[in-house]
Amino acid sequence: MIFAPQSRKYVHMEDDKNTEKNISNLGEFGLIEHLTKNIQLYNKSTKLGVGDDAAVLKYGSNEILISSDLLTEGIHFDLIYSPLKHLGYKAAVVNFSDIYAMNGIPRQITLALAVSQKIKLSMLEEFYSGINLACEKYGVDFVGGDTSTSLTGMHIAITVVGEAKKGKITFRKGAKTNDLICVSGELGGAYMGLQLLEREKKLFLSGNVEQPILEGHSYILEKQLKPEARKDIVQLFETIDLVPTAMIDISDGLSSDIFHICKQSDSGCKIYAEKIPIHHETKKMADEFNIDPLIAAFNGGEDYELLFTVSPNDFDKISNRPEITIIGYITDKQEGKYMVTKENQLIELQAQGWDTTKA
Amino acid sequence: MIFAPQSRKYVHMEDDKNTEKNISNLGEFGLIEHLTKNIQLYNKSTKLGVGDDAAVLKYGSNEILISSDLLTEGIHFDLIYSPLKHLGYKAAVVNFSDIYAMNGIPRQITLALAVSQKIKLSMLEEFYSGINLACEKYGVDFVGGDTSTSLTGMHIAITVVGEAKKGKITFRKGAKTNDLICVSGELGGAYMGLQLLEREKKLFLSGNVEQPILEGHSYILEKQLKPEARKDIVQLFETIDLVPTAMIDISDGLSSDIFHICKQSDSGCKIYAEKIPIHHETKKMADEFNIDPLIAAFNGGEDYELLFTVSPNDFDKISNRPEITIIGYITDKQEGKYMVTKENQLIELQAQGWDTTKA
Repeated sequence: MIFAPQSRKYVHMEDDKNTEKNISNLGEFGLIEHLTKNIQLYNKSTKLGVGDDAAVLKYGSNEILISSDLLTEGIHFDLIYSPLKHLGYKAAVVNFSDIYAMNGIPRQITLALAVSQKIKLSMLEEFYSGINLACEKYGVDFVGGDTSTSLTGMHIAITVVGEAKKGKITFRKGAKTNDLICVSGELGGAYMGLQLLEREKKLFLSGNVEQPILEGHSYILEKQLKPEARKDIVQLFETIDLVPTAMIDISDGLSSDIFHICKQSDSGCKIYAEKIPIHHETKKMADEFNIDPLIAAFNGGEDYELLFTVSPNDFDKISNRPEITIIGYITDKQEGKYMVTKENQLIELQAQGWDTTKA
Repeated sequence: MIFAPQSRKYVHMEDDKNTEKNISNLGEFGLIEHLTKNIQLYNKSTKLGVGDDAAVLKYGSNEILISSDLLTEGIHFDLIYSPLKHLGYKAAVVNFSDIYAMNGIPRQITLALAVSQKIKLSMLEEFYSGINLACEKYGVDFVGGDTSTSLTGMHIAITVVGEAKKGKITFRKGAKTNDLICVSGELGGAYMGLQLLEREKKLFLSGNVEQPILEGHSYILEKQLKPEARKDIVQLFETIDLVPTAMIDISDGLSSDIFHICKQSDSGCKIYAEKIPIHHETKKMADEFNIDPLIAAFNGGEDYELLFTVSPNDFDKISNRPEITIIGYITDKQEGKYMVTKENQLIELQAQGWDTTKA
């Protein structure tokens, strides 16, 4: 290919005020779909490309999962209230979560990191120690790194490689009508933790308090600042010999994430509001903020719990597990996607989740 | 682990003017070494972690290579003179280069991308089309993506997965005394391309020219803006049944990169100045800037040529290849690392390459 410098024009970003199609209008999911629609695959080792929590590769007889995330300062985290060690821990764990969401086991991660001048060596050491702690706890190997400077902000890109037994990988697309919709743990906590941190930050910066009041909120703060991935649930599936029909981790909120499953499984859903598991601290904080805790669960995101569907035949395997809650069931696509209130009203679900217009 | 919010302190970055150990003093390589020294490995599928161009994993009977890079605006590229399509192409290719540098074949990439509001959809489309073009040309599958907003700047993290035949992986550490030091292609071009672009940018921004004068410099501009990785050289090794004893791709400049080989191989080197292959356009531009073209080759970086060592017994296999130049040989460690001038003077090499103090 001939490079033709004479045909290039210098681009002056500030002057680029045209009215072309806007990224914000597409939202994150529309944007990725739009940008990746022309991708071709060339290698037989690629079993599944873009579109699930992780891509699936096949090397020898093993199925390998791979997923990448980028966390960027000011969008995904705020260094004012994120201790660097927690940030490293969270950055690793949310990547592990993508592999568990495929019913796999994370094995290796690589890190590409860019930091600005304000980050001191001791802060980087804290960050790395958080990653190492997560790796130790989850048995994952930290195998590669690229560290450089950035003009502004801290940018953390982690790629995770995982492994899954043949036939055990769980995609977003396998849910069938009448399958039970289940979640691990409790929802909405990470969102309420964020609201608390944002409120205390404002007070702190305004000079009205010397130290933020965070006592008594350790559950929601930990869900936000130092979440865990549900390795235990994937191990439980192995123990009780259960393969979910579809699975995703809740990173964008229950609403967005059930939308992903329904879209890829070509189905609808009914979710019972009363069944949504919500921690008492989450409820209490939602009360303080005068918001419905269901909003935190449906729209909040970052819970990193597993949302999965199981065949009704497997009901007995999960019905008495305290760590799993059945919250609804899969319907035919034409029945739509609804929340059922305790008064038995049907409220249509909206995809929420991350949207560039709000960022 | 109990989360203890009461023990945390709000960190106010601007106030953090202490005199602790500075990142700049360590440099990139020292920094990565410092930060990764506590890493433990837990999985038998991890054969090699941090420290080479790629990590080596073993799944089934195959050896898999994995490497990640982050490119950040203002440090690694300037959108004023980097067309987005070229940038996508380069971001992919420099990652492929890390796999070729291990004597492997890149198979899959994932992309994590953060862009600020100034990036329009059409620019993102251009960027993706550049990645797709690189993938098509090199036969690599684009299997995963994460796209989000950033407050400022564009940040590109790519992870590449590659494959290598058992026993064919080439590390930095295998060079032996008397091995021949070889490079592919020609050196210093990317650096002189960058000097030209920076000069023209200054003139353009000062309003002294309407369009930059880039005609007649397509070789050095292409080396900088749209480099290629040496897939052909790795294929040649296969054809002529040659396994280099050590290999690295030249991303930081000949000097830095031979330092990596010497350090990990516990050896020294002699490199003959007269043998360094330099393109006539590189020489001409170095002349214009009144700098020694050897500086561009030794300190410039970003050439993405392969630097490798071969056993003297393999001399015949490479001696008549126009795409390969023998530039020196490996010595015992205590003999040091030297460039030999045409007047037969010895000049001690310095590790150069990227350094945070210059960024």
